Amino acid sequence: MRIALLGVGLIGGSIGLAAAERLDGGAEVAGLDPGDGVLDAALELGAIDRAADSISDALEGAEACFVCAPVGALPDLIHDALAAAGDDCVVSDVGSTKRDLARAIDDERYIGGHPVAGAETSGVAHARADLFEGAAWYLTPGERASGVLYERLHRLIAGLGARPAAIDAEVHDRLLAAVSHLPHVLANVLVSQASRTSAEEGEPLPRVGPSFRDATRVAGANSSIWTDIYLANGEAIAGEIDAAVEHLREIAAVLRRGDADALASWNEEAGGQRRRLAEAHLAAGDLHELRVSVPNRPGIVAQVALALGRASLNIEDLALAPAPDMNSGSITLWIAGDDAAARATELIEDLGYPVAEA
Amino acid sequence: MRIALLGVGLIGGSIGLAAAERLDGGAEVAGLDPGDGVLDAALELGAIDRAADSISDALEGAEACFVCAPVGALPDLIHDALAAAGDDCVVSDVGSTKRDLARAIDDERYIGGHPVAGAETSGVAHARADLFEGAAWYLTPGERASGVLYERLHRLIAGLGARPAAIDAEVHDRLLAAVSHLPHVLANVLVSQASRTSAEEGEPLPRVGPSFRDATRVAGANSSIWTDIYLANGEAIAGEIDAAVEHLREIAAVLRRGDADALASWNEEAGGQRRRLAEAHLAAGDLHELRVSVPNRPGIVAQVALALGRASLNIEDLALAPAPDMNSGSITLWIAGDDAAARATELIEDLGYPVAEA
Repeated sequence: MRIALLGVGLIGGSIGLAAAERLDGGAEVAGLDPGDGVLDAALELGAIDRAADSISDALEGAEACFVCAPVGALPDLIHDALAAAGDDCVVSDVGSTKRDLARAIDDERYIGGHPVAGAETSGVAHARADLFEGAAWYLTPGERASGVLYERLHRLIAGLGARPAAIDAEVHDRLLAAVSHLPHVLANVLVSQASRTSAEEGEPLPRVGPSFRDATRVAGANSSIWTDIYLANGEAIAGEIDAAVEHLREIAAVLRRGDADALASWNEEAGGQRRRLAEAHLAAGDLHELRVSVPNRPGIVAQVALALGRASLNIEDLALAPAPDMNSGSITLWIAGDDAAARATELIEDLGYPVAEA
Repeated sequence: MRIALLGVGLIGGSIGLAAAERLDGGAEVAGLDPGDGVLDAALELGAIDRAADSISDALEGAEACFVCAPVGALPDLIHDALAAAGDDCVVSDVGSTKRDLARAIDDERYIGGHPVAGAETSGVAHARADLFEGAAWYLTPGERASGVLYERLHRLIAGLGARPAAIDAEVHDRLLAAVSHLPHVLANVLVSQASRTSAEEGEPLPRVGPSFRDATRVAGANSSIWTDIYLANGEAIAGEIDAAVEHLREIAAVLRRGDADALASWNEEAGGQRRRLAEAHLAAGDLHELRVSVPNRPGIVAQVALALGRASLNIEDLALAPAPDMNSGSITLWIAGDDAAARATELIEDLGYPVAEA
């Protein structure tokens, strides 16, 4: 399979590596990237086989092209790719909003895409052949999309290790607004209010443990990426904000009238929703949340992780909540599967640390 | 020092342990707790010296009393403690809201308190002598509070390892509303909207990495604790919600008019606020956020943690972002201090994992 990558960063580079390592029959990957030294690094890592010097050079003979650029640059680049591509080349992209592209581009060779894979890092140095392993990869074919090219793209993406799933472009954007974009907006709101309240009261903020930090981790995320996402999905995000405003006003009213029953049932409902959402994401069985009280010395996390690793128990997720002095704290571990969680509890208690299940 | 603990859970038990291990001149701790087997466990752990069978028994000869019960139970228990306490006994509590107590209790022996220490776990089994080490411990003395008793309480709390800080009870509640209670409300809102949008669109939610999970980790937190907190601090939380609503409506308007400059500067401001808040919490120097791309095999977190532990580099905080299949992912590490972060980067890169600073 001859593949063209327009943009060879984390995602483009990982497509190249996965194609080289995993595709039956191999791949021949041409890459184009405006960044200094990016193509040299990509060649060295094996993410591309050939450094192209123009879009038409990259697309020469290509059977599939992925445009891997920031959301704002996608329309023009996809247009240029389609102009350079042959009739038998599928052109896709990896942008995290899809509606505007679906509206702007009317070509039977174009099929929008969005691999839902970790993007906390960027750059080809972080590319990995297994980045897409098991990940959802949304595809948003328009009504005129070629069936032959859709099939090729689907198989190619499955070959990279991902799970392709067709979805309407507008539905995609509304889902992502709820589950990704709104959390970013609320994180920004939280840091803003904490800063303002602290300034108004003339008091430094207390360090109150992990809830504030977790909730604000993504505040002010990379503006060059996020401004584009906000712009491209503004309508859906504004809709989610409207719903949040309505919900918040109801809760403010409940708080003001001091309705304990309403508060408890609202909170219980949220707890149930959180558990169902977490479980829906896991194939390996119910997720157990284990809380371990530990001294926060160098080596303790390692000790716990090693004990579980030796028993081949995988840690799905992990969060440390150190006390302000960092001398003590708790580790929260998420373990999938009843048996695995029971075994993990046993092993950690054998180390002398008490474990509670949340 | 003779100390009475009304309630011997995580906080009460940790006060007892810290008093036994750390106070000059030692401590004699009497405990009262309604839970099955709690006092036996506390005696065995050394968190109390004597199991009391009534409030007056616990207060017998006490020089200081801490009421360590859920917020809703505090007014009655503090009242009973003051009735049983001698003239020379300071009575405090550890509730996370303070205004209602300040208004309800008018006694020169009462001084409200709130240790800002990790409470992700509960129960005396998780109590630790170092739970309060370096932690802020707010004190909310009323106008009539005894100077002698305030001094005693301040010294006692410093002796437990914490940093006592006097604060107006209302200011305390407004600060905590911004930094602790509002994040809980917004987490509930987020899971509710994600559930609703998913149901409306008839699509399962994608697993979108750590931002949604981090933002919703505290959704539906223990209702028996949180309903009390919401009730006790309802007015301040409702005020924070009002401000959030106003902020959200402005952002929705900016999104609808597609104002890229306004979005970018809003997002940049949030990023700056987040960094300033994070740095304000750390004494050991600037916080560095290192992102490491790794295979998500058992043992990798341990390997990284061990490498840093061997070099005596402490991990302030750590978050894993596994890909959906759990075979690959990234580790985000927070390391305090420029030199420590540089050394950590070097050590992790020596293991063969690329590191990026956020």
